[in-house]
Amino acid sequence: MSRFRLVLHVEPRPGVLDPQGAATRRALEQLGFASVQAVRVGKEITLEVEAPDASEARRQVEEMVRVLLVNPSTESYRMELAETPGRNGSGAAANTTLGAGAR
Amino acid sequence: MSRFRLVLHVEPRPGVLDPQGAATRRALEQLGFASVQAVRVGKEITLEVEAPDASEARRQVEEMVRVLLVNPSTESYRMELAETPGRNGSGAAANTTLGAGAR
Repeated sequence: MSRFRLVLHVEPRPGVLDPQGAATRRALEQLGFASVQAVRVGKEITLEVEAPDASEARRQVEEMVRVLLVNPSTESYRMELAETPGRNGSGAAANTTLGAGAR
Repeated sequence: MSRFRLVLHVEPRPGVLDPQGAATRRALEQLGFASVQAVRVGKEITLEVEAPDASEARRQVEEMVRVLLVNPSTESYRMELAETPGRNGSGAAANTTLGAGAR
């Protein structure tokens, strides 16, 4: 088994209310940052999972997305295989974008 | 003036309590995902700002980081210049990591 690090970039779907983004923008404007045109706030979830290989690690995380981590009606996500800590925790691979979607 | 899109990847500092990460890990374990070794939950803030050039856009966002967006005692961040919407909103450049830090 090896240890894989996958990063989920989860964003509000375009057109869906983004209260955190709106509140952040208002606060920045009140602080005098007039140049701000748009703000979106999403989540970045970094997961370390044990799996026989990268595709199995990805399959497991996609199941976690389906069951818990992403709300498909309001969020979309992109998954990235970050450097692979490998068996003894030493970093090895580069970042690879694996896919995106809501489910 | 042009319009620039910058992305802030904000993470809990290593060693600092990450309640969201801990709660997410517990929930995944309770759902039967025994392979999960670690979970960290951070923010991804996408900002669109108007500025004469990219370095001015970056300077403004670093000031927003200092004043509001990142808590240096508990969070660290990495800033990325995403594709540059440019004057008429058409995507142009590639992603460039600009820097990291707490402040």
